[in-house]
Amino acid sequence: MPSPPPAWVQALKPAGPQGSELLAQERAQQQQILSILESDKVFDKSENYTLGRTEKIQRALAKAKRLQQLAVQHKWSQDDYYMANELLSEPTPYGLHASMFLVTLREQTTPEQKKLFLEPASRYEIIGCYAQTELGHGSNVRGLETTATWNPDDKTFTIHSPTLTASKWWIGSLGRTANHAVVMAQLFIGGKNYGPTRSLSRFVICKPTSLWRISTSETLVLSSATSDTMDNGFLLFNKVKIPHVNMLARFSSVDKETNKYLRPASHSLLYGTMTWVRSNIVLQAGSVLARGVTIATRYCAVRRQFQDRDGGKDAGENQVLNYKMVQIRLLPLLASMYALHFTGRGMMRLYEENQKRMKGAVEAGQDKRGAGPEQLRAGADLLADLHATSCGLKALASTTAGEGLEVCRRACGGHGYSNYSGIGPWYADYLPTLTWEGDNYMLTQQVARYLLKSARAVLAGKGTNNDTSQILQTYLSRREKGASFDILEEDKDIVAAFAWRTAHLTFEALKRRDVEKRSWNSLLVDFWRLSTAHSQYLVVKNFYEAVTSPQLTSELDPETVTLMHKLFRLYSLHTLEREAGEFFSSSAVTTRQISLAQSNAVMKLLDDIRPHAVRLVDAWKFPDWQLDSSLGRYDGEVYPDLFRRASQNPVNDLVFDPYPWNENVLKNSAPKSKL
Amino acid sequence: MPSPPPAWVQALKPAGPQGSELLAQERAQQQQILSILESDKVFDKSENYTLGRTEKIQRALAKAKRLQQLAVQHKWSQDDYYMANELLSEPTPYGLHASMFLVTLREQTTPEQKKLFLEPASRYEIIGCYAQTELGHGSNVRGLETTATWNPDDKTFTIHSPTLTASKWWIGSLGRTANHAVVMAQLFIGGKNYGPTRSLSRFVICKPTSLWRISTSETLVLSSATSDTMDNGFLLFNKVKIPHVNMLARFSSVDKETNKYLRPASHSLLYGTMTWVRSNIVLQAGSVLARGVTIATRYCAVRRQFQDRDGGKDAGENQVLNYKMVQIRLLPLLASMYALHFTGRGMMRLYEENQKRMKGAVEAGQDKRGAGPEQLRAGADLLADLHATSCGLKALASTTAGEGLEVCRRACGGHGYSNYSGIGPWYADYLPTLTWEGDNYMLTQQVARYLLKSARAVLAGKGTNNDTSQILQTYLSRREKGASFDILEEDKDIVAAFAWRTAHLTFEALKRRDVEKRSWNSLLVDFWRLSTAHSQYLVVKNFYEAVTSPQLTSELDPETVTLMHKLFRLYSLHTLEREAGEFFSSSAVTTRQISLAQSNAVMKLLDDIRPHAVRLVDAWKFPDWQLDSSLGRYDGEVYPDLFRRASQNPVNDLVFDPYPWNENVLKNSAPKSKL
Repeated sequence: MPSPPPAWVQALKPAGPQGSELLAQERAQQQQILSILESDKVFDKSENYTLGRTEKIQRALAKAKRLQQLAVQHKWSQDDYYMANELLSEPTPYGLHASMFLVTLREQTTPEQKKLFLEPASRYEIIGCYAQTELGHGSNVRGLETTATWNPDDKTFTIHSPTLTASKWWIGSLGRTANHAVVMAQLFIGGKNYGPTRSLSRFVICKPTSLWRISTSETLVLSSATSDTMDNGFLLFNKVKIPHVNMLARFSSVDKETNKYLRPASHSLLYGTMTWVRSNIVLQAGSVLARGVTIATRYCAVRRQFQDRDGGKDAGENQVLNYKMVQIRLLPLLASMYALHFTGRGMMRLYEENQKRMKGAVEAGQDKRGAGPEQLRAGADLLADLHATSCGLKALASTTAGEGLEVCRRACGGHGYSNYSGIGPWYADYLPTLTWEGDNYMLTQQVARYLLKSARAVLAGKGTNNDTSQILQTYLSRREKGASFDILEEDKDIVAAFAWRTAHLTFEALKRRDVEKRSWNSLLVDFWRLSTAHSQYLVVKNFYEAVTSPQLTSELDPETVTLMHKLFRLYSLHTLEREAGEFFSSSAVTTRQISLAQSNAVMKLLDDIRPHAVRLVDAWKFPDWQLDSSLGRYDGEVYPDLFRRASQNPVNDLVFDPYPWNENVLKNSAPKSKL
Repeated sequence: MPSPPPAWVQALKPAGPQGSELLAQERAQQQQILSILESDKVFDKSENYTLGRTEKIQRALAKAKRLQQLAVQHKWSQDDYYMANELLSEPTPYGLHASMFLVTLREQTTPEQKKLFLEPASRYEIIGCYAQTELGHGSNVRGLETTATWNPDDKTFTIHSPTLTASKWWIGSLGRTANHAVVMAQLFIGGKNYGPTRSLSRFVICKPTSLWRISTSETLVLSSATSDTMDNGFLLFNKVKIPHVNMLARFSSVDKETNKYLRPASHSLLYGTMTWVRSNIVLQAGSVLARGVTIATRYCAVRRQFQDRDGGKDAGENQVLNYKMVQIRLLPLLASMYALHFTGRGMMRLYEENQKRMKGAVEAGQDKRGAGPEQLRAGADLLADLHATSCGLKALASTTAGEGLEVCRRACGGHGYSNYSGIGPWYADYLPTLTWEGDNYMLTQQVARYLLKSARAVLAGKGTNNDTSQILQTYLSRREKGASFDILEEDKDIVAAFAWRTAHLTFEALKRRDVEKRSWNSLLVDFWRLSTAHSQYLVVKNFYEAVTSPQLTSELDPETVTLMHKLFRLYSLHTLEREAGEFFSSSAVTTRQISLAQSNAVMKLLDDIRPHAVRLVDAWKFPDWQLDSSLGRYDGEVYPDLFRRASQNPVNDLVFDPYPWNENVLKNSAPKSKL
């Protein structure tokens, strides 16, 4: 360790008012889980930025093991365990076992398979991963090359990788940790392809020659830009045989006797899972973004730069958060994190209510009480709507959060780029979310396809009762009269203006596809714009419904309710002015309205929200240990913390010989000893 | 090392046509410098993503030393040395010595100081850094807290850090390598502050108690998110005395006899240096972006995903680059990299011509030939214009390049996030450019201030001949008649439409400031928009001038000239549709024109440019060794290269014990031995 700072250095304070004085004081108590983690040396975060890849991955496994031990010891619920992982805020080699592997086994297995696989996996007696993505194939599941061929003679499947691009790639936890995998492969029976299906491959029983991943010692590990604490890996099969029971058979299976493929009864439940996963990404996006906004808002309240130009010569340096150019970057993101949170919650609620209703309808149908079919149809209609909207919202929400984090980092000036800001590493870990679970650009096609289909139905007089049909219907019935929304005074007119724009773009796209017969490819850009517009409408609508809901207005004090309304308006009007072109050309608003929104309404909202900014981020209650950020410290002691962290850097132990003519890098070292 | 892949794995090929077949074959020979670097083991890049911080910084110094040795051995010119650094593409601990330190000594020293400091520094007998930024103060040089106090008694300066926030922070090469620093401090003479000035501090002669950076062994090193190969450091002074000669005295100084401050004769030359630095950032931004576009374009030409929806059931998977949604992201960036390159070149040329003219005028004045004053005034006018435009362009160009790199990464799908893509690390290294040399948001105020000043002059009939005055004048004279630009047919009308929008926004802002008396702070967002608009106009104008220049049209074949015109139109029309709101509201174009530009003109340009995309990135001739990217390989052998890199990952040597109930992370290791 370097010598400690001399006394005179230790006595120095930052100039002017201390950061702690600039931040408000009231906050909630630290949770119990946090104190367990904080007091355990294995979870120490201080070397996160200095260790190499091999050290990091070992520490990550040690952390994963300890979390599992603690979960058993303290009888943590599933939610407690997730919370502990969130506080730790780094992927671990158990990450994919605890999520995708266990979830797949839970949802896709028969009772027999549950006993065989799920139970030992839940006890961590087998450790698994989820092998779907291939080297040459990401979003396109139908393009997967790995094959699972049914052998009628010995009632087994043969798993095979026919090409290099068929290697399972990027698979988290596969690198060093997992000894089982759920493998997605094309099912072949009697030479015919029945499409992708899931089966379980138990590596440990495979022969060395048949699988290029025979024991942990021969697995390869990808260097991932996302995090050095996950053992991403890849995997190739050379005609590996697995027993019949290893094909996960809850929904579809191969009949052992007839050698026939048994189709799933309905795709709704499979759709349902994806819808749930994507709604969850929307909900998470709010809190992912909230981390960055918390750090940047606190730091911009502590940091002072430049005098206000109109403030006279003797004015001190101004808090950065007082500058409109900083407010216009941070405060709409502050509004967005609430908007995404409410939207995610709204979608989850809708999804769960509908699942319950459908389950009821199915059971009623089975009881022959006859109430089933119509309710089922309505349920399926809503599920289709939810599926499409969840695609678009996943894209919008994760893009907003990912790009928003980078805006937060830049709002912190130079220190934003330091690892000690806590934003950069978090941003890097989050970014792949924009690509996985459906690439954000690819997903927009599904939204457009659904909107076009709905528009065709509405034009044919076959629209349903769901919201999408209704906004298209409203547009058609008012199109001739034109829109006249009072976006500057009426909150509900803001929602209507967003709906109008979506409907306008939908019918424009429909005309290009159906009347002008344009190619699908030439319309992809229009579809992406359409999906974005539709998703923005949904966020605005969900935010509006949340701030006007009886629940919110009864739980919060009137001042906070007013503030929430202002956040709603800031999110909406700021989005509206950024997308001004589309609002003009759809005649949803006038240029005069946009101009007033921009130069008056938004500026006024920034003024109104600014004094509450710190309180609004504090409400998310991120503990310092989780943020791991000098800039975002709750107490505002930014500079001493930066100073402390830099002082502890292990590079301080090196003594360089700086002159180029001496080969040695270190002083007093034997030539090239270190290299 | 892990066991080599078995024979059957080695024999596997990617499915379908090989990447190499998909990319064109013609390219230039590798440069001589490249082969020197490639053959030297010290420059090996294969462990860049697996080493820890302390190992990386040692290797980086070894590389820096070797580069310097090679420069002397092979008699490299300055340009050769820069080229070698660019091929290496990582910051080294000599980076700041070779740039800011030497440049400052060259430009700011007297002949006596050149002998004392510059000459030994050029021979690397002293190694320096540039200590300007402080812990609490970034862009605002006037806010620096470090003081340099003149002592009339012993004719020395005392350098002092009165607070913690005064520590020099982020200083590259200071951490472990430099033993001298140019220190920026507030000059005090007789209690009066004369503003920031530069002086040279020689660490080696300081007493341990007076400076918290007495020898290399006590310096602290910042963990930087940008790169682990630079030894950023920080520094505090406790009343350190330096001799009179250590204040860099070419432009301003303290008179030893009278104890008076001697002011610089003119600020033009200082302005000039900053203008040059920023113009250089604009030029570099083109090639920084070109790296990302090269990688993404090549990979998207190799990668195939999904069938074309209109292509029928039997169509093979389509090259990703054929999708319009990919083209609309990559091809405008391809156009941007050319646009920024031409703009940077145009600015450099203008700057150099003007410097020459002004020098001529000064000499003529000194010769009393009388030609001076008027030419000097014209030169100063142009320099002021260049200074303002360079601020705005630095902001626009670095934002375009930084954000463009992220677009390129996402266009590569999941593999974009792998370090092996070569985009992520390059993006992380580049991003701070958006903040340093003037924060991109802060800079826009300088542009706005200049435009407002110019507009006031034009209104008062005192406009000059420079371009800014002219576009404001043109707008005023045509405002009543209105604009009628034919942006879809006439290239020069595109330039005129961009000029019109700038002028419109300038007079709008002027009205708000001068007539409505709005506060400066409330206008910051308008100023930022104005600066962006103005800078986009300048890029469009420079691009147009380049593609219509006799030089370009005589050097290139007609087909390439046509292609360059198309790139110009793509950049311009794509920018125009993204900023549609401002073009509408300034009446520069009609909504009908925008709609046609969007759905017809831009789509047609994408079709036209697509077949030439690979050739257009190949033209930048980045060697594979420099790109260090599996995805961007010249030969298109993407997948085998990913495979090879993953196989060499040192994590493959670890054997995990994966079960949570065993404390050991590694198999066969003593408990906790590794942690």
